[in-house]
Amino acid sequence: MAELGKRAMEGDIRAASRLIRNMEDNLPGTEAEIKDIFPFTGKAHVIGITGSPGAGKSTLTDEMAAAYRKKDKTVGVMAVDPTSPFTGGALLGDRIRMQRHAEDTGVFVRSLATRGAMGGLSKAVGDGIHVLDAMGKDVIIVETVGVGQQEVEIINHAHTVLVVLVPGMGDEVQALKAGLMEIADIFVINKADRDGASKLYQETLNMLQMGKWDDGWIPPIVTVENVADPISFAQSVSDLTDKIDEHYQFLVKSNILAVRKHRKATAEINESLRATILEPILNELTANGELETMIQKIMKRELDPYSLAELVAKKYMAS
Amino acid sequence: MAELGKRAMEGDIRAASRLIRNMEDNLPGTEAEIKDIFPFTGKAHVIGITGSPGAGKSTLTDEMAAAYRKKDKTVGVMAVDPTSPFTGGALLGDRIRMQRHAEDTGVFVRSLATRGAMGGLSKAVGDGIHVLDAMGKDVIIVETVGVGQQEVEIINHAHTVLVVLVPGMGDEVQALKAGLMEIADIFVINKADRDGASKLYQETLNMLQMGKWDDGWIPPIVTVENVADPISFAQSVSDLTDKIDEHYQFLVKSNILAVRKHRKATAEINESLRATILEPILNELTANGELETMIQKIMKRELDPYSLAELVAKKYMAS
Repeated sequence: MAELGKRAMEGDIRAASRLIRNMEDNLPGTEAEIKDIFPFTGKAHVIGITGSPGAGKSTLTDEMAAAYRKKDKTVGVMAVDPTSPFTGGALLGDRIRMQRHAEDTGVFVRSLATRGAMGGLSKAVGDGIHVLDAMGKDVIIVETVGVGQQEVEIINHAHTVLVVLVPGMGDEVQALKAGLMEIADIFVINKADRDGASKLYQETLNMLQMGKWDDGWIPPIVTVENVADPISFAQSVSDLTDKIDEHYQFLVKSNILAVRKHRKATAEINESLRATILEPILNELTANGELETMIQKIMKRELDPYSLAELVAKKYMAS
Repeated sequence: MAELGKRAMEGDIRAASRLIRNMEDNLPGTEAEIKDIFPFTGKAHVIGITGSPGAGKSTLTDEMAAAYRKKDKTVGVMAVDPTSPFTGGALLGDRIRMQRHAEDTGVFVRSLATRGAMGGLSKAVGDGIHVLDAMGKDVIIVETVGVGQQEVEIINHAHTVLVVLVPGMGDEVQALKAGLMEIADIFVINKADRDGASKLYQETLNMLQMGKWDDGWIPPIVTVENVADPISFAQSVSDLTDKIDEHYQFLVKSNILAVRKHRKATAEINESLRATILEPILNELTANGELETMIQKIMKRELDPYSLAELVAKKYMAS
């Protein structure tokens, strides 16, 4: 059974795609695949990209992949898209993107959605990173849509976090920046040819000056110019990857890389415990109809959710 | 112990605030409070508001509260803010908002963040709604920041979902609309005096015409005009609340309200099981140092997260 992972490690793109798709669909058997490939993971530099919708993250990711290829590094890209829990259809998923890398076996791109399972997205992202890592990708770029708690959880999987800002968004977006402050290793001001770019730069700088940077890394602000002009765009993004590589060297030298790997391992244990303990219980309660009985009791206010959960715990947990 | 809930039901604002704050901090004892008040819940009309950052949701919520007060309804507002998991500080929380309702005991406003616990935000929102509901609020407005999986989970707690759109956002925002399509009961085009409002209206209408509306409710598009002109703004929002009330009547008559309450109960069971089964295990593993040992093994690639989770399951689960 556990062979998709091995085939992915041998360079079988179809096997890798199918494995990631299975993770997305939370199919049984993917955990066995991870067990197989896990010893061969932990080598890649994982870069997380977050920022508001409309900030141009996809185009930036595309160009970053190209810049890393020029540096002779192999690249894995995972675009994480929110999904409706009602249809299970990926919101921006299945979009045809990064066509320019289609012929290059050094770049592997997958978009990943979730089927609405609680906490399932972060698990699927973590496992998907393991697949790209075991495939031997030097750099893995994880791009998330939106800015929220879920995105912050996903960011736990990254070693270097880019927060992408763009001029001309509303006040609330500016406020969101403050919350992203602490997770950013590098700020990117994208579409820097737009009105308001220098104001945004100054505001971000002001914010940075108010922060405490005890670990010795002050997040730089990198401006990325004019997507419409391919040459200056490529140059800006190449400079950005230099800065990202500099951050990685800093992480290694300062031993902060170990701190981030610790955080990532903690998140993975959280997710594997949920998948191994809670999901089988929910599946059994669903199959034997007890879940429906419980739902009815809650709707009629005959019993509250916490008393019900205690009854379930009594049944399933060792005393 | 379990007395904050009772005091909240008697109209004690401080007790209610403290209880919601305790839920936010995931303090022990809040579940006992919910057990106490749960029989008195389930009466309020819960309205969820979502949409991109910068769409003007806070101002809209504020005005909706005023409109409902004019209809002699009491209002509870919960503004759900994303939080950094690193500092635990609320991003937009503790902001002073809705000052105009400060003297009106018929409006109770709380902002709610989360301390980064996996799945914890949705649980805190659900429990917070129970508090406002038990307090006897006729209408509860839940406003979320951002558009993501987390927000969609929160929306599970609502009976009527408003998706707020605003002219002049980027293409990706337009794409996000497609994903919000299925959860929207009412579309609000906010700041409709801006350039591009009629284009946005037409695009939304086109999307609506492509959808299937088997349950008999076609989401209306309500435009809200000129926040700068208080009178026309108040009138637009008053019309909006009429439309929301119409939706509630539809839910009751069509029995779809029962479907939504079923969905809400399902989400609550998911969350109570996580809190009752998984959290105590994680707390014990943390306290006795086993979690740290597990993290070290994962970092050294001596063992993978799923094999570790199986060992934990063997110890804690009834065989």
